[in-house]
Amino acid sequence: MDQTEPAALRVALAYHEAWTGKDMDTAMKYIAEDIVCDAPAGRIEGAAAYRAFLGPFAESLTGSAMIAAYGDEERALVMYDTASPRVASAPGAECVTVVDGRIAYSRFLFDRLPFARRP
Amino acid sequence: MDQTEPAALRVALAYHEAWTGKDMDTAMKYIAEDIVCDAPAGRIEGAAAYRAFLGPFAESLTGSAMIAAYGDEERALVMYDTASPRVASAPGAECVTVVDGRIAYSRFLFDRLPFARRP
Repeated sequence: MDQTEPAALRVALAYHEAWTGKDMDTAMKYIAEDIVCDAPAGRIEGAAAYRAFLGPFAESLTGSAMIAAYGDEERALVMYDTASPRVASAPGAECVTVVDGRIAYSRFLFDRLPFARRP
Repeated sequence: MDQTEPAALRVALAYHEAWTGKDMDTAMKYIAEDIVCDAPAGRIEGAAAYRAFLGPFAESLTGSAMIAAYGDEERALVMYDTASPRVASAPGAECVTVVDGRIAYSRFLFDRLPFARRP
């Protein structure tokens, strides 16, 4: 972890590395208990609901690659690609607001269509 | 336009302001003739095809708001929300590579599902 990176970017990158590495316990250390996440299907509230949303997808990953990551002390914006048996290339983007070292708000974006086509 | 912003971010913001303002002629000044855009439905190649892809959506906009924008001298990453009669809130994210003041490559991400549901 590059300590010269702005604080929110550092959290976003550490979080990303953990969940794409299927280490949800570590990933959740970067998620606020009262996280609010606006995802394509609607709002997800609270760490437990968030883990239930992301955990199964993380577990299914066969690959991932960061496309770009930027941020400052308060917010970070990342875009990445993921691979899973259901969808070979499913990019995502997250704009996260970090408070006290944890992600308190996330705007989460991905294309649901390929997942809807292959249930 | 803030001249202290890194070059690629400046281009991405000027481009964004133009197309969301339905000024496609100005927007296209920031698009390379041989642009390659990887969008959810596949690759779009060349400025004419890109304009045909984006123009009708731009024309349909009833609102837009930048969520976050970051970048450096070569690349920029933006996330924004859009509103149109078809979809009240359709966020998008673009990671653009800028060469000689124009977007030469774009990774374009949005959720196609609400558009597929409401043809």
